Amino acid sequence: MTEIRYDVVGIGNAIVDVIARCDDAFLAARDLKKGSMQLIGTDAVMELYKSIGPAVEISGGSAANTIVGVASLGGTAAFIGKVADDELGRIFAHDIRAAGVAFDTPPSKGGASTARSLILVTPDGERTMNTFLGVSPELDGGAIKADMIAAGRIVYLEGYLFDREEAKAAFREAAGIATKAGRQVALTLSDGFCVDRHRDAFRALVKDQVDILFANESEIKSLYQTENFDDAARQAAADVKLAVLTRSAKGAVIQSGGKAVTVAAAPVAKVVDTTGAGDLYAAGFLYGHAKGLDLETCGKLGSLAAAEIISHVGARPEQPLAALARTKGLI
Amino acid sequence: MTEIRYDVVGIGNAIVDVIARCDDAFLAARDLKKGSMQLIGTDAVMELYKSIGPAVEISGGSAANTIVGVASLGGTAAFIGKVADDELGRIFAHDIRAAGVAFDTPPSKGGASTARSLILVTPDGERTMNTFLGVSPELDGGAIKADMIAAGRIVYLEGYLFDREEAKAAFREAAGIATKAGRQVALTLSDGFCVDRHRDAFRALVKDQVDILFANESEIKSLYQTENFDDAARQAAADVKLAVLTRSAKGAVIQSGGKAVTVAAAPVAKVVDTTGAGDLYAAGFLYGHAKGLDLETCGKLGSLAAAEIISHVGARPEQPLAALARTKGLI
Repeated sequence: MTEIRYDVVGIGNAIVDVIARCDDAFLAARDLKKGSMQLIGTDAVMELYKSIGPAVEISGGSAANTIVGVASLGGTAAFIGKVADDELGRIFAHDIRAAGVAFDTPPSKGGASTARSLILVTPDGERTMNTFLGVSPELDGGAIKADMIAAGRIVYLEGYLFDREEAKAAFREAAGIATKAGRQVALTLSDGFCVDRHRDAFRALVKDQVDILFANESEIKSLYQTENFDDAARQAAADVKLAVLTRSAKGAVIQSGGKAVTVAAAPVAKVVDTTGAGDLYAAGFLYGHAKGLDLETCGKLGSLAAAEIISHVGARPEQPLAALARTKGLI
Repeated sequence: MTEIRYDVVGIGNAIVDVIARCDDAFLAARDLKKGSMQLIGTDAVMELYKSIGPAVEISGGSAANTIVGVASLGGTAAFIGKVADDELGRIFAHDIRAAGVAFDTPPSKGGASTARSLILVTPDGERTMNTFLGVSPELDGGAIKADMIAAGRIVYLEGYLFDREEAKAAFREAAGIATKAGRQVALTLSDGFCVDRHRDAFRALVKDQVDILFANESEIKSLYQTENFDDAARQAAADVKLAVLTRSAKGAVIQSGGKAVTVAAAPVAKVVDTTGAGDLYAAGFLYGHAKGLDLETCGKLGSLAAAEIISHVGARPEQPLAALARTKGLI
């Protein structure tokens, strides 16, 4: 039996975000669906990069952001994800380790490059993501380390991994290891379009292997193919032990054991960039849950972390979340 | 006779900034002098990078920041600087072009990598820079394009170039071309320690070839080896047509033709990161001067641009400076 060493172990795409501002007309002219994530290839990423404004590079990746958030709250955390042996890969590895996260997935040499996501932020703070996955889905060949996964109280998986077959296999392998070790398996659905593309696989996974499900309103509606949020929430509650459903400014609904807890969103003076809002909500919630806190406190920690992240550019915390949570009396 | 196509042509190091927060103890433990720039080698940059916290990558470089500021104010601008054919080089080239600056210095292949500066920002907003110059000083072999320099109303050179022999030669070449073409030559002293290392060369250059000199208080005192600012200002006024001397929160003193104009610093709600303050002051001033505005307005444009840059992380404007200047009635 492996000893528990981490509150949360995350598995996801290892991405460096390239964040630039644009107006709505820029998105419209390129048929980019505001608020969504689309996958793009080498040529498309180069073409789009040429057309965007000056950018800022910040480490990202959905589950990676969450794991950094857990560490920022004072939790113990590890991350599994694939980078290449290139400059962006070194940036990703540096930043996640510097945040206090255990990260030792070896970089790939000589193949595809490290993933990057061109993130366009409109004046309303909404982000539209255009992701070149590069080497990121190549999680086969020993990247999924059983001992690390079994050492996590919760194993957290991002739905985005489902967009590539090789990553999907790694995803299932990790979930299997966690289940076998008696760990909790958490999943975020990641994106409405991602759910559309892989609905059946997600439904089976949620029902069979997931203990804790994170989804926003559009994702959970898409998963259960209903226009009614309450209906979707009911179905989620039947499928998983714990469903954490976020509704942006409307706050979150947490379903557990037949009960529903509603937690308001934390106030934000100005929404600068929504990138990472869901990721950091999950961070706060998972940290609280791993520490055995009640669901309402878990939800409040989620709201707090999400509020911090949307108040600035980028999806990594700019201030230690633990200090922030302490000033609010949450931890 | 070459036609004027640019308000300002800048020549400087082409650097990507790697910006991380740290506390004063971190600087003290490593003998890093707060507020200064030190040059470091390959091993030292790798070692320091390992020890710093999560970072953000943003294009930088002193003269490059200035030139982007000129473009952001609506001026026409070009930049000459050397990057390698690598990821950071592509980031630098993208960002400066996306800002509307003409940049066509060809990247080097197979040699040193693109320059980066590890910038440590303390809680007081002060920045301490640790720069690995990489390929940046290699401005020989045709990088200094005479037609581009002759097409600039003002040629702006950064003093940091003096820290490497090959760049110093390029610097002199550029100044020579500008003078021969009847253009104005502007210089920023860049850093007190840089002035210490190259005082005699700077003194000769300022006296013989510079029309517009930018310096902060410690730099100008160092240049003339005096502890008295007024004394240094007097000597500067004797050496150049126009001396623009900045004194941080105390504002700036502009010396021209025997007159001195004092311009107050623009108010800033919170100093987040002083990186680029001097660079953007120069941007505002040079834009105004190229457009034939009076010295006080030039100074106010400088203060406005500097105030914008120190209110956020990074040395590139987050909002169009032209719009900002229009709301203040400056342009």
